[in-house]
Amino acid sequence: MQFKRNLELATDLYQLTMANVYFNEGKQDQEAVFDLFIRKNPFNGGYTVAAGLEQVIEYIKNLKFTPEDIELLRKNHPEFTPEFLDYLKDFKFTGDIEALEEGTIFFPLEPIIRVKGPLIEAQIVETALLAIINHQTLIATKASRIADEAEDDIKMEFGLRRAHGTEAGYFGARAAVIGGFDGTSNVETEEMLDRPSMGTMAHSFVQSFDNEEEAFETFCRNNPNNSILLVDTYNTLEQGIPNAIKVFRKLKNEGVITGNYGIRIDSGDLAYLTREARRMLDDAGFTDALICASSDLDEYLIKDLKLQGAKIDSWGVGTKLITAYDWPALGGVYKMSQIDDKPRLKVSNDPWKITNPGLKKLVRIYGANGKALADLILLEDEEIDTTKPLKIFHPLYPWKKRVLRDFTVKDLLVPIFKDGKQVYESPSITEMANHLKDEKESIWPEYRRMTNPEEFHVDLSQNLYDLKHELLDKVSAQNEEIEV
Amino acid sequence: MQFKRNLELATDLYQLTMANVYFNEGKQDQEAVFDLFIRKNPFNGGYTVAAGLEQVIEYIKNLKFTPEDIELLRKNHPEFTPEFLDYLKDFKFTGDIEALEEGTIFFPLEPIIRVKGPLIEAQIVETALLAIINHQTLIATKASRIADEAEDDIKMEFGLRRAHGTEAGYFGARAAVIGGFDGTSNVETEEMLDRPSMGTMAHSFVQSFDNEEEAFETFCRNNPNNSILLVDTYNTLEQGIPNAIKVFRKLKNEGVITGNYGIRIDSGDLAYLTREARRMLDDAGFTDALICASSDLDEYLIKDLKLQGAKIDSWGVGTKLITAYDWPALGGVYKMSQIDDKPRLKVSNDPWKITNPGLKKLVRIYGANGKALADLILLEDEEIDTTKPLKIFHPLYPWKKRVLRDFTVKDLLVPIFKDGKQVYESPSITEMANHLKDEKESIWPEYRRMTNPEEFHVDLSQNLYDLKHELLDKVSAQNEEIEV
Repeated sequence: MQFKRNLELATDLYQLTMANVYFNEGKQDQEAVFDLFIRKNPFNGGYTVAAGLEQVIEYIKNLKFTPEDIELLRKNHPEFTPEFLDYLKDFKFTGDIEALEEGTIFFPLEPIIRVKGPLIEAQIVETALLAIINHQTLIATKASRIADEAEDDIKMEFGLRRAHGTEAGYFGARAAVIGGFDGTSNVETEEMLDRPSMGTMAHSFVQSFDNEEEAFETFCRNNPNNSILLVDTYNTLEQGIPNAIKVFRKLKNEGVITGNYGIRIDSGDLAYLTREARRMLDDAGFTDALICASSDLDEYLIKDLKLQGAKIDSWGVGTKLITAYDWPALGGVYKMSQIDDKPRLKVSNDPWKITNPGLKKLVRIYGANGKALADLILLEDEEIDTTKPLKIFHPLYPWKKRVLRDFTVKDLLVPIFKDGKQVYESPSITEMANHLKDEKESIWPEYRRMTNPEEFHVDLSQNLYDLKHELLDKVSAQNEEIEV
Repeated sequence: MQFKRNLELATDLYQLTMANVYFNEGKQDQEAVFDLFIRKNPFNGGYTVAAGLEQVIEYIKNLKFTPEDIELLRKNHPEFTPEFLDYLKDFKFTGDIEALEEGTIFFPLEPIIRVKGPLIEAQIVETALLAIINHQTLIATKASRIADEAEDDIKMEFGLRRAHGTEAGYFGARAAVIGGFDGTSNVETEEMLDRPSMGTMAHSFVQSFDNEEEAFETFCRNNPNNSILLVDTYNTLEQGIPNAIKVFRKLKNEGVITGNYGIRIDSGDLAYLTREARRMLDDAGFTDALICASSDLDEYLIKDLKLQGAKIDSWGVGTKLITAYDWPALGGVYKMSQIDDKPRLKVSNDPWKITNPGLKKLVRIYGANGKALADLILLEDEEIDTTKPLKIFHPLYPWKKRVLRDFTVKDLLVPIFKDGKQVYESPSITEMANHLKDEKESIWPEYRRMTNPEEFHVDLSQNLYDLKHELLDKVSAQNEEIEV
């Protein structure tokens, strides 16, 4: 069940097409800077949760082209020169990477990964970085939103069967745990997540017996520490729960059931059915029986069910989490911001889509109470004097100003690779999940609200703002010059 | 770049939990039948395209538990008996599988995979089968819908960076080609799809030069057979296209450009910009220059752009295809329909969710003109006499009747495994894509319309209908019997 695979060809052809040109034109070693960032928080939410860095590190570390790769490219792509294909034989990443740690909360336009290195290398890694980060960051953010609404209840990821293939299920489960889930039904993750997978039974188990009661009793006798019975195969209130109660009564008396026990409901109206189930279980004396619910759950339905008095101890969330159903793609992009010390931007009619030029860093500014006040994107060589008031302003509407006093500053980008050498070790999944919990403590709930949250301030330093506008003026001037 | 990996642990824990009980209770060899089916066509469409079978075959063939797997399960799951873990050491699939061929059009409630074999084996394979089939079938169907609207234009899959990880991009590209796409930018697929990947250049290529014209000329000189220039880095109409035309003029005169050439536009209003681009290119004498478009395309936008006179020869479709953005999960389920020759169903308040019992087969009925008239689900031992009129009726509203005459019948489920032995070889991807084209010819366009299509008839045989209602009556009777 080894999962690692080489991803050197998990790329868009144009990366190699461009690399071929860079190599043939002697441009391959120009020093390039690329930023990976998003333009919008997913789910119309107020924040995003970084995830996937550990797999990016694996990818960069193992990145090499095999002789079979080279032969395939030679055969299919006559545009690749023999010299370029030769170069690929010894390809490895030799640049610098900085990134947000997994579990860090971030916001649109902030560089979450910064790659600085030879142009050809920084270009070739683009697609895999995006695919990995876009996926896991999306699912971690969805999980975090769901976890916020499920509060201290047990939260289980159940989505493998609806994931975009088994790998999406595997890494999606990882992201779900970073985002705040307690575990997953996905057995393949046990080693990676260092925790047992979780689960109950399926309808087919009940169907494989001639009657439900016999199925339940047999299940409990074989699972005395996790006797959770699925009660909706035939009729939840008329058959399933009464049969479960009969079995609990018998096997509790016999001392068979010794651990968690209870029921799971996977269909019907969960508010009504779980209130009735709780009443029936309590009336029978099983006040400590757990009620687990599944069935198309997401943060909105969980919130509504709680408001309607549903009695649910444990939530099994599948499709809506593992596919990020209501926002199934994070639009992360990877844009060049500098080449050979010359800052660059990409222009767009949409002001939000104009990129920020130069080699940049990202800091978070905290007030005396430990709450985050704003993020600031600066040029790498800028320093913030925390002994003086700091004026910050909105990057598109600069008349929106604030003056900050009595603040501290934290660098958010952490060195991951230096000259191609890994200088960072990923913490455990539990540490990542705890990091996210700390992050949430530091961000006012107004920015984390499920619907219509307030927009967190992400500003540019004056120097970066000036550089950007200088470059924009230059592009506008050129528009008037070109004639055919 | 080997892609195969073992998927034995890519499963929900509850499959193994149930397997453990089946084994310990001596139920493991009861003969079970499971059907894999969907309840609704995705995208509110009228049809669905089967895909993923080749990966299911790989999974079944390679399915075994390694000593490391067993050790992990032993460590994490005290509920698994030593005897069960021993049994897993020699586990392999020994049953029968029938399935729809890839590229086959199918409809809700139809068995698309039928597994018949020892209960424990048929149970253990559930999750991986669903994950594989749900994913690829979803993307193939989305691709087919997009291909319908893009008609004979070139259709390229560009979505890897937004896929749910690199494997979702890899198999998603495969499904896109089955669904009707000409190719993909995903280099990793070249061996699997037996075709070169496709692509142009990124904005970073232009940014890496001091001016756009130099970037364009350098690109063309290195790609004389695929000189497609991305023209929207700074200003599409004022800079990008004029610079492209200058370069085409120069390099055509020099005889450098010898193959496909043209432009790609990745932002802005594609209807207006491509009409202007076509006019500018034509005015400059480049009537054969291709115009490629990308930027959040899907079947709806493609249809609208065509209606608005957009001039686009080649469509690059990314996010919306590779994530099936507007319907990102296929709700395929895997339900037991028989155990030890006893037919079973799962009851639901929703009549559409009550499963069809028994060992079943699926046939398509064609009229004399070769068009499909209806599908019929029958019990395995039923035969249709094509020499007599055939009365079919709606499975929920049996008063909706039709009598068919002069028809032919085709079995849709094909044997894939027999007693655990593979008896089917997947055709090439091109053959699968061609099969889908043939399928579309046989299904009236009314059933394939993008919005609000007519519902294709999927009926039950009288025998199957009677069996289902007999079992339903039995369940109702039980509801009155149980008391706690």
